Amino acid sequence: MSAQAPHNTLLIPGPIEFDDAVLQSMSHYAESHVAPGFVKVFGETLTLVRKLFQSTNPTAQPFIISGSGTLGWDLVSANLIERGENALVLNTGYFGDSFGQCLETYGANVTHLKAPIGDRTPLEEVEAALKEKSYKLITLTHVDTSTGVLSDVKGVAQLVRRVSPDTLVVVDGVCSVGSEEIAFDEWDLDAVLTASQKAIGCPPGLSIVMTSGRAIQAAQSRKTPPGAYYASIANWLPIMQNYENNKPSYFATPPTQLVHALHTTLTQITADVPGRFAIHTEVSDKVKAAATELGLKQLAARPECQAHGMTAMYLPEGLVPADVLPGLLKRGVIFAAGLHKDIATKYIRFGHMGVSVTDPKLGHVDNALAALKEALAEAKQAKAL
Amino acid sequence: MSAQAPHNTLLIPGPIEFDDAVLQSMSHYAESHVAPGFVKVFGETLTLVRKLFQSTNPTAQPFIISGSGTLGWDLVSANLIERGENALVLNTGYFGDSFGQCLETYGANVTHLKAPIGDRTPLEEVEAALKEKSYKLITLTHVDTSTGVLSDVKGVAQLVRRVSPDTLVVVDGVCSVGSEEIAFDEWDLDAVLTASQKAIGCPPGLSIVMTSGRAIQAAQSRKTPPGAYYASIANWLPIMQNYENNKPSYFATPPTQLVHALHTTLTQITADVPGRFAIHTEVSDKVKAAATELGLKQLAARPECQAHGMTAMYLPEGLVPADVLPGLLKRGVIFAAGLHKDIATKYIRFGHMGVSVTDPKLGHVDNALAALKEALAEAKQAKAL
Repeated sequence: MSAQAPHNTLLIPGPIEFDDAVLQSMSHYAESHVAPGFVKVFGETLTLVRKLFQSTNPTAQPFIISGSGTLGWDLVSANLIERGENALVLNTGYFGDSFGQCLETYGANVTHLKAPIGDRTPLEEVEAALKEKSYKLITLTHVDTSTGVLSDVKGVAQLVRRVSPDTLVVVDGVCSVGSEEIAFDEWDLDAVLTASQKAIGCPPGLSIVMTSGRAIQAAQSRKTPPGAYYASIANWLPIMQNYENNKPSYFATPPTQLVHALHTTLTQITADVPGRFAIHTEVSDKVKAAATELGLKQLAARPECQAHGMTAMYLPEGLVPADVLPGLLKRGVIFAAGLHKDIATKYIRFGHMGVSVTDPKLGHVDNALAALKEALAEAKQAKAL
Repeated sequence: MSAQAPHNTLLIPGPIEFDDAVLQSMSHYAESHVAPGFVKVFGETLTLVRKLFQSTNPTAQPFIISGSGTLGWDLVSANLIERGENALVLNTGYFGDSFGQCLETYGANVTHLKAPIGDRTPLEEVEAALKEKSYKLITLTHVDTSTGVLSDVKGVAQLVRRVSPDTLVVVDGVCSVGSEEIAFDEWDLDAVLTASQKAIGCPPGLSIVMTSGRAIQAAQSRKTPPGAYYASIANWLPIMQNYENNKPSYFATPPTQLVHALHTTLTQITADVPGRFAIHTEVSDKVKAAATELGLKQLAARPECQAHGMTAMYLPEGLVPADVLPGLLKRGVIFAAGLHKDIATKYIRFGHMGVSVTDPKLGHVDNALAALKEALAEAKQAKAL
């Protein structure tokens, strides 16, 4: 039994349902951001972020900052690249477009390699692009929330190290961290940015960025000052280092309640990181098999391109999201409509992350699949399809 | 009786103690940021921000963004002024220095008018500076959290309109909004930036910025693109307008739980805005009289320069904060040490804002004054002063 007020089950690709203990952490009483108790919790939370990324390299540096996931793009764009330098964006949808706009805001020359909807950019194309000119950084969206496409982060990182070893590898992991495997050190990544409210299972309001020693050095050896103030690595680095060393420090007031909630969820997640990925894969396989059985095709056609924390499914010809989502809601289940602007009316998105996946006793996924079957049948009947 | 776990009373100049209902809002169950229920709450919260600022001008525009108060500086600096334009900073302490650094990050030419510690810049000096060159904007810290100095916002705004009418008047209200009177329209201000965790009485994690039609026009008629992406007014403006018109909209995921908490506290505050300021003044007068009785001088010597939500007090000669703060803590009360770097070891800060002021039954202020008296006596005795 949940301690939460009765509500429809939120199964969109973030925000997601919360564990009771995480939500209780949100109503922690007032604390000073520099008091010993909070300093300890914040410091531990930073260390838990390292664990989440399976990172033990002491030159790597986590950041936890008050803000949306979007803020992570500014942290990358204002610090790791300078005006006039080149950025290569592996674009798998909506979020590649926006990351590109953010990079351009801070003066980067952006080249997009656009993959067809539902697919990845082939590694050969990436290799050819990397050989054509010198890129300061390459970005890829690990899971594109708009399409459910999973990128090959490990493969791209290996390619970059072979072909253009100084290029920084930047991963937008907003919709992947906590549900997709990321071995930060082993894969030799330079920055993974994420947010609190997806597979990490915390309420929204935290921008979380993991950086390599190489990335920090790039920020520190800039020829020009950082492009932003709030999103400046130089301003936050000593703060994060101090907190992790159990010393109070001030640049801007951290959101103390959200940090407590993040501490709670990361303590749960990092108790078994490989187990976390395994169960997300298992449940994802089940969802995708059920979708196929219902005759629903995924946007991500090839299995290796399918995310494990969400499923984006085309509706049968003749149906739009507004035909199906109300039927789901009537059954207590919330899915999301399409987001990719070219095909937004043709598909729906089912988020299966966090407690809805790790605690099968809640019945979230089973109920959702049953509701989907009924709502689809109802919608087809209404349209006489 | 509070529903909160037993804890020491937090009486620093932010974060502050929370009303039970506000804290309960923090553990709201998971919601989509574009679901009708949340869209309504977010829209209403924006309208409540207008009420808080006593603003009815439809061209004025509130922003509520996931971030610390510091992010408000970026919102001003990246949108309301362009590279090479002049900014005049009325500097009353730590926060004037930092706002100046933020403006410089985005390319402004910054002139500081530094007031002596504990005082304001005289209006004549401001007038002379405004006549010397053309300033795109002027900033002032309404209450400098480091010193407790209250600026004359109304007087400065009047002066600017008389002497340099096109100069934008920007107020850092992080430590004033909710405890000091601000009549946004009547005083003809252009931007007031604040945060959720001080006199507004919400947990930290929201940057709140109120802007005038003149400010929005300045942002929209820039010759160069905005200097930031996450802190871009162009990116947020349609989102805020849509939410207030009850339409879902997406740029970055808003921190849904914090927005609920802000909605709860603003509903309480805006039930009687003048009453809110009156009780903060009344309790502040009482605190300051008690401090004087204990022989403690304020950093802000002149009464018209004294904030009403906090009191910064010099300790008796021979005592440092570490002599007194543990004695307070022993009695269940948390004050803050000094922050202004030139004199940080010479004074302490007592925050009296929000529920600790508006609900006398809690006994927070009376207990704190009694604890201060005892802790001071103890410290003097220990040092044989």
